[in-house]
Parts: sequence; structure tokens; C-alpha cells
Amino acid sequence: MSDATPLELPGDHLFGPDNLPYCVFTTEDDPDLPRIGVRYGDYVLDAGSAAGAHGSPHTGLLQKPNLNPLMAAGRPVWQAVRAELRSWLTSPEYAGTVTHSLIRLEDITLHLPFEVADYVDFYASEHHATNVGRIFRPGGEPLTPNWKHLPIGYHGRSGTVVVSGTPVVRPQGQRKAPDEASPSFGPSRRLDIEAEVGFVVGTPSRLGEPVPQAAFREHVFGVCLVNDWSARDIQAWEYVPLGPFLGKSFATSVSAWVTPLDALDAARTEPPQRTHPLLEYLEDSAGGEPGGLDLRISVSLNGHTIAEPPFSAMYWTAAQQLAHMTVNGASLRTGDLFASGTVSGPEVHQRGCLLELTWSGRDPVELPDGKRTFLEDGDEVVITAWAPGPNGSRIGLGEVSGRIHPAADR
Amino acid sequence: MSDATPLELPGDHLFGPDNLPYCVFTTEDDPDLPRIGVRYGDYVLDAGSAAGAHGSPHTGLLQKPNLNPLMAAGRPVWQAVRAELRSWLTSPEYAGTVTHSLIRLEDITLHLPFEVADYVDFYASEHHATNVGRIFRPGGEPLTPNWKHLPIGYHGRSGTVVVSGTPVVRPQGQRKAPDEASPSFGPSRRLDIEAEVGFVVGTPSRLGEPVPQAAFREHVFGVCLVNDWSARDIQAWEYVPLGPFLGKSFATSVSAWVTPLDALDAARTEPPQRTHPLLEYLEDSAGGEPGGLDLRISVSLNGHTIAEPPFSAMYWTAAQQLAHMTVNGASLRTGDLFASGTVSGPEVHQRGCLLELTWSGRDPVELPDGKRTFLEDGDEVVITAWAPGPNGSRIGLGEVSGRIHPAADR
Repeated sequence: MSDATPLELPGDHLFGPDNLPYCVFTTEDDPDLPRIGVRYGDYVLDAGSAAGAHGSPHTGLLQKPNLNPLMAAGRPVWQAVRAELRSWLTSPEYAGTVTHSLIRLEDITLHLPFEVADYVDFYASEHHATNVGRIFRPGGEPLTPNWKHLPIGYHGRSGTVVVSGTPVVRPQGQRKAPDEASPSFGPSRRLDIEAEVGFVVGTPSRLGEPVPQAAFREHVFGVCLVNDWSARDIQAWEYVPLGPFLGKSFATSVSAWVTPLDALDAARTEPPQRTHPLLEYLEDSAGGEPGGLDLRISVSLNGHTIAEPPFSAMYWTAAQQLAHMTVNGASLRTGDLFASGTVSGPEVHQRGCLLELTWSGRDPVELPDGKRTFLEDGDEVVITAWAPGPNGSRIGLGEVSGRIHPAADR
Repeated sequence: MSDATPLELPGDHLFGPDNLPYCVFTTEDDPDLPRIGVRYGDYVLDAGSAAGAHGSPHTGLLQKPNLNPLMAAGRPVWQAVRAELRSWLTSPEYAGTVTHSLIRLEDITLHLPFEVADYVDFYASEHHATNVGRIFRPGGEPLTPNWKHLPIGYHGRSGTVVVSGTPVVRPQGQRKAPDEASPSFGPSRRLDIEAEVGFVVGTPSRLGEPVPQAAFREHVFGVCLVNDWSARDIQAWEYVPLGPFLGKSFATSVSAWVTPLDALDAARTEPPQRTHPLLEYLEDSAGGEPGGLDLRISVSLNGHTIAEPPFSAMYWTAAQQLAHMTVNGASLRTGDLFASGTVSGPEVHQRGCLLELTWSGRDPVELPDGKRTFLEDGDEVVITAWAPGPNGSRIGLGEVSGRIHPAADR
């Protein structure tokens, strides 16, 4: 990287002209002025500043403290803004002006890029659901009877969605092992990660009007990486009959970068073969294009790669999840976030959470600094991903990271 | 009621000077200007207008389009504003001025009074949970092993919380009866109500810092009535293992009126005797005052009373729910809504949903216009409640109503 040529990137850069993910950042000089940024190489473009300098008709939407107004503006605006950004960053005629709006990545602080409306978490990996079923309900059928008929999901806590880098305080709560007579209270002993992919809704919908799969691209603005931190001991004691609650609600981390869906066109892929017939609103053909996404995820713990889950292995697609989530008439709001659930592939090293990787603690993961069953205080987890881009390029997704801090009262 | 004396109320009026619930309303003249209102008798006080006319220091907080800024201001402000409102409405010195800010109830349109942040629904009635357990899991223990140790709850969809009077479109979705080989799609055939009481958070809390029961009054602004509409057939097919989702998320109705907690002091009552020891953060003494509330609820279907659930019978109190919801460090936001779950008492006519009232359809409810197992298109449900007030008075809670409209594609 050289100061003189911020616009010149090697062809294999993960954040080149076909990517252009969005963020919200501040600088040391203006810590109270959050601004929309766009990543280009190892720089961030101050999008509002560049828009103003180039007389963009979208300057107002880009000079905002978060992405919500842009996301609400709808797909034709998303496409027009993306074309402008690309033009400013790649056309020689703008090279002299756009550089004034570029800031080095190391000189900014990243913030939650959008206001989260509702947060829904799905359970869309057959491998994950099967492994969890085998661990939690040994001897029974690993998948519940509904699993192949609908994408199972539930609402999470949107108020505790935090941006990558936010420390995660080990949660306290009730837990009761099967062999204990009564529950006890204390810091979670089985703190876990869940490597997931999140989809961010831009265009809202009206109450009572289902959103079909074919309208997926009109409503979904982009993609982020998600770590759905999970306290397995709290979760196991509380989740019957109404589902996970405090085992999840202490924190959900999302990447600071939202990758536009249009950057992932080359990553579209067919989902796994279906083993059960689907009701019409969930049929794969209903989306009009392959519903899967070939995202290659990597999970590291204290700098050591512990898993490489393939998003292409997910049974349920994001378009199916959107159609299901709204088929009862539930409306969408700008800022709704729905995540895939843990991404796990068929191989052991493709499992996206420690519960599966260590088979509930039976098979510890070996790290240079010792063995792990679940997370210890001080552990840092970083989830990254990339996708195939046009012409053999790669599209990088912004990382989601978090470090475990000790429980408050310890 | 007489035009000349809007300030003179009979002593037994449900909306007298000890009540003063808040709403947000518009008038026909200013349909795009939502304003904060306070109910007094059969009138609404335009609170911002009255505050301005009387030079209140809180005028800015009251001249807003919703209650969130007032709710975020904290309890000392809530108390100061309440004292002002009461003074304007009851002191002879203001009688000449305050009447200019009074509008007849029939001349206003009511709106959702606050922006909902996160919505959590609990399951706090032992009678309800036991009945549902008997119906859904016959032969087994009706209560799950965790039920007496923690207030079970889950997150609902805040984007589909609607104000009383909003029509409820019958949801469509997947349902599969146990004797059917595969699921089918269509309008819910088992559409139900759930009569609940909701608690609205004003003062936020910080991530990582649990809110103890003793801080309940500092954080909770007031109370509303809730109808958590439920599609039992959709719910039954989807809810294992991650809890209710589409069976609930199509609509949750709340009353247009938020009753300040301070109006319910005389309704405080001890909760039922505990059968199991509680962990310290859930102990009843931890709240510093009786945690129960003596609210007398009435549910009517097409004008016919079908149930009178007693809120005093709830096993878990709202303070316990708040402490539990945050014990893992989850933060509160202004506008968080947490509801009690269906309110049911020990008697048949005290059951707060049709699932229980009709024992899953076995024992239809008799109405003047015919029998009901579950809701039919056109049915209107109205939930009301009152509580004991000071000196033998009664405090009315604003109703929550809704009428069922046919499914969209029928």
C-alpha cells in the first residue's frame, strides 16, 4: 500500500471494485459525526463527502449517520449509488477528486452500520441441526418432523446486536445439568460461538402482504457476517418449550461491513438437493435464480483456524427464509436482520460452533495455547469469509470479531 | 357527560384524577400531527398544548409524536409530569385554561403510543401453562421442569405490534395435524386470542449490567393491555425446537393507552405462594414491594363476555420477569415491551384464550350468534381491565380490541 496510489489495487484484492461494502465510521477528528463509508482496498471512501464533491443526486442519502435511509430507498437507488461509487473509484476522470475522500482504514473507528429493527435467527444447516439433535436428543430422530418442510426460525433480541470488535461479557444465568437436582446461578460454563451469515432488509413491506421469493432482491440490501454467541448451559435449561432466550440475548455480533447483494452475483449457486417436496411458496424455482450462495467461511480462535464452514451447504436459502418469515402477513421493516443459523458442512472441520466441533466437550479443539471445549475468558474469535467474484476475483466479507471478558461479578 | 363541565367527574369514573393514562392521538383537523394525550373522563387532554399554556418545564417532552422521549426521561420526570397533569386537571386555578386543551374522545384517532424496541412475551400463568401442557402434551407432566425456577419467555416480532382497533388479517401458513402425512398451506383454522398485560420500559440500561427487581420502578414506565393473537395450528407445527414464530408474528395488539405504574399503587398484591425455592435474583422480597398486580381482566367476543381472568393469579411477577430478562447482561431500551403471557385463573371462566376455554375445541363457547371453538372471520375481541384505586376508586385500563378479517388470498 502506498499513499500515492490508493486507487491502484492488485487484481486479487478482496475489496476491489466489484465488492464495495458499506460501513459507518468516525474519525478521531470527528468522533461524534458517524458517516457512511465504502471500503476500497485498504481505504474507506467517505461516501457522503465523495457524493457532495461529485454532485451526486444521492448526496442526502449518503450524508447520514447510518445506512437505514439508503437501505429504505429501494433497489433502483442502491444500483444507481453503486454505479456512482464504482465510477468515482475507477474512472480516471475522478482520480484527482475522489482521493480527497479516501481515509486509511487504520484511521477510522467502525460502528454498527444500521439500526436493527427485528432480528430473526434461522436454523438452516441440515448438518448443524442434525449434529445438535444428536447431541441434545441422543437416541431420537436428530431432525424434528418439521425441519425439511419449513425453515425453522425464531426472533432474537435486536437491542443487543453489537458491531464487530465489541467485547462480549460472559453471561450469567441459570443452568442445570441433567444430573443436578436443582438449578444454580453463575457465569456460563459452556460459552460458544455460532458462525452465521446475516441478511439485511432495506425495502419494507406492508402488514398482511407476504413477500414471495421472487421479490427477494427488491427487499434485501446486503449481507453481513454474524456471530450468534450462545451460552449452551443456559440455553439447554431454558429452551423447552418456547425456544432460546437468555442463552442468546446477551450479545449477537455483526460485521461492521454490509456487502451489497449485487456484489455476490458470481457466488450464486444451487442449494443442496431436496429430499422432501416443498409447498409452493418455498419451491426453489420460485426465486428465479439459484438461491444458494457460495461463501467460504473461516473461524479462528486466538488466531488459529478452527473451522471452515461452507455456506453453499445450507439447506434453506435466504429467499426461502424471507418468503417463510412473511407468509403469515408479517411485515418487513428497514433494518430487519435475519441470520442463517450456524453454518456447518458435512465434514468435522466444517462445523460452525464449538458444540459441534468438540461434540459437546468430548473432543477438545487443540490450540497452540492449550485445549478448548468452550470459550475461556480472554479468547478472541474472528469469523471471515470470501466469495467468488467476477472473472476469477474474490469478494471479501468484512470480519466479525469479539473477545470474551470475564463475567461482571466474578 | 356535559360540555359545560368536562372537569367534573363522578367519583367512580374509571378514568379519574388518579389514573391519567397516556396515549398518542390525531384530530381530523391535523391528521399528520400525532400528539401526546392524557385521558380524563371522556376527554383527552392535549398534553403538549396544556404544558405550553401553563409554562411547564416539560413542554418539550410532551410536544412529541410519541411517548418515547418522555419515557426515556426517567422516573423523577414521570412523577413531576404526572403531578403537573393532575394539578391542571383538578385545581380550580387552572379550570379556565386547561379546558382549552381538552378534546372529546370521539373526536380523536388513537395511534400506537410508543415505538416498540424489543418485544418479549412471557408465560407466567401457572394455570395457563398447566392447561396448555395438558392439551399439547397429554399424559406427560404439564409443566416443564424449568417452569417453577424461571419465568419462561421468548422474543416476539416488534414490527408487527399494532394499536388497538387495527384489523387482524387471518394468517396463512403451514399446519399439519398429527394424523396428516404432510403439511398443507392455507388460512389458519385455529385462530386464537391471548389476553395479556404488557409492561413498557422507559429508562434504558447498559449492556452487561443486570437490572435487579429493586430497580423495577426506575425502568418500567407503565402498563398496557395486550392481545397476543395466536394461530394454534401454525404454532403447533412449527414450535419445536425453537419456539413460536409465525403462529404469533402476524400481529400483536396493544391498547392505545399506557397506564403509569404510579396509578396502580393500590393494586399491588402478593403473588401466589411459591412451591419451589427461588434463586436470589428472583426472590420475591428482592423487589421491595408486593410484586403482583390486582388487575381484573374481561374478555369479550362480539360483545359477549367469555372470560374474566384475574392478573393477581400470575405466578411470576413483572419485576421477576425484568430481572430475569436482564440477568445475562442483556440491555433495556426505551420502548421495550414485555408481556405477561396469557392470563388465566384457576376457574374455567378465568381462562384467557380460546385454546383453554374450549379445551382445544372440544367444548365450544356459546355465544348469542352461535358456538365458537376458535375465531371466525368478522369476530371482534375486546379486552378490558380495571384495578383497585385509592379510596375505593377504580382505575380503568384502556381496552385492546381487534376484528378478524379474512385471509388475503381466500
